[in-house]
Amino acid sequence: MFYPRLIENLMDRLTRLPGIGRRSAERMVFWMLNQPKEDIQALIDAIADLKAHLMFCRRCHHLSDSALCPICSDQSRDQGMICIVEDPKDVIAIEKSGAYKGVYHVLLGTIAPVDGRGPENLTIQHLLNRVAEEKIQEVIIATDSDNEGEMTALYLVKVLKPLGGLVSRIGIGLPAGSSLEYADISTLSMSLTSRREVGV
Amino acid sequence: MFYPRLIENLMDRLTRLPGIGRRSAERMVFWMLNQPKEDIQALIDAIADLKAHLMFCRRCHHLSDSALCPICSDQSRDQGMICIVEDPKDVIAIEKSGAYKGVYHVLLGTIAPVDGRGPENLTIQHLLNRVAEEKIQEVIIATDSDNEGEMTALYLVKVLKPLGGLVSRIGIGLPAGSSLEYADISTLSMSLTSRREVGV
Repeated sequence: MFYPRLIENLMDRLTRLPGIGRRSAERMVFWMLNQPKEDIQALIDAIADLKAHLMFCRRCHHLSDSALCPICSDQSRDQGMICIVEDPKDVIAIEKSGAYKGVYHVLLGTIAPVDGRGPENLTIQHLLNRVAEEKIQEVIIATDSDNEGEMTALYLVKVLKPLGGLVSRIGIGLPAGSSLEYADISTLSMSLTSRREVGV
Repeated sequence: MFYPRLIENLMDRLTRLPGIGRRSAERMVFWMLNQPKEDIQALIDAIADLKAHLMFCRRCHHLSDSALCPICSDQSRDQGMICIVEDPKDVIAIEKSGAYKGVYHVLLGTIAPVDGRGPENLTIQHLLNRVAEEKIQEVIIATDSDNEGEMTALYLVKVLKPLGGLVSRIGIGLPAGSSLEYADISTLSMSLTSRREVGV
């Protein structure tokens, strides 16, 4: 305990952040001490606002500032094409690739019986309602290519196929057993263009 | 702008922190989203408390939670020995070494005429008052060994010497455990000038 309690306390909190060790926390604390009060207040407000006001889009469940996310509100996008992903981070990854102009549906997880997560814990029922109610031409399943992702994809094919319309799975490009979030732009782009229809 | 505004805003604020790039900021934001509200509130409070309540010790100008810092209040320490350092961080560094049991005086900077900082911008007048009023046996000048630190040390010797008492400068030279072969020219030159006679 070489530091005053106020500093120790903040350092303790900062080292809980991912990738932040004691040394980085120390640097941050001294940086904060030297910043104008307004700048630190702006940082505090940004954190508080995130926790207080960030919500899930009521249509696609992507992270959003408003009830309907910018992607769902964007009429220049193909509203008849839904890309199904596990997490909001996956939406960001695909958006960065620039290879997709449709809308999304975020499952907010995967089917993982081992962890006791079944289809009812995801946003799948809402997805089925969307496909039934909206004019959807194609549904692209873009879950991870790991076990849980594949299991979820299989389940989705089973429930989506009977509704008619094209159901596809991203394929070529995504290395097997890897997480979509970490794929590079061209891999993502390729896997989107090379999607193929899946049978029953 | 792939992220909702609330996330972009926080990421922008986080990337201003030292050593935090966009990728780290991204990870922090998603980590924050997954943390319980109370934990994030505790982080916010820790930052706010730091800016609101951290002060300088009225005696030694070290960072402190209270008017008098724990080192100055500690009667088991040698209150008759003052170690003069540039910054609070230097106090921490020396405390970590465990090699010093006296008290400190933090200058809160260096003399740097180029940047328009003279002795009057530091806590030097207060230091002189302390040496005059308190029973001080020894003053150790522990400013950095760079140009500004050396200039400040020279000035301190000039003003402290007339007050009587022992004035010393920390040893400057070859770092412990290092090889002479790899020392830089100025370190070697300084370690030669600051040589001292060795006893039998």
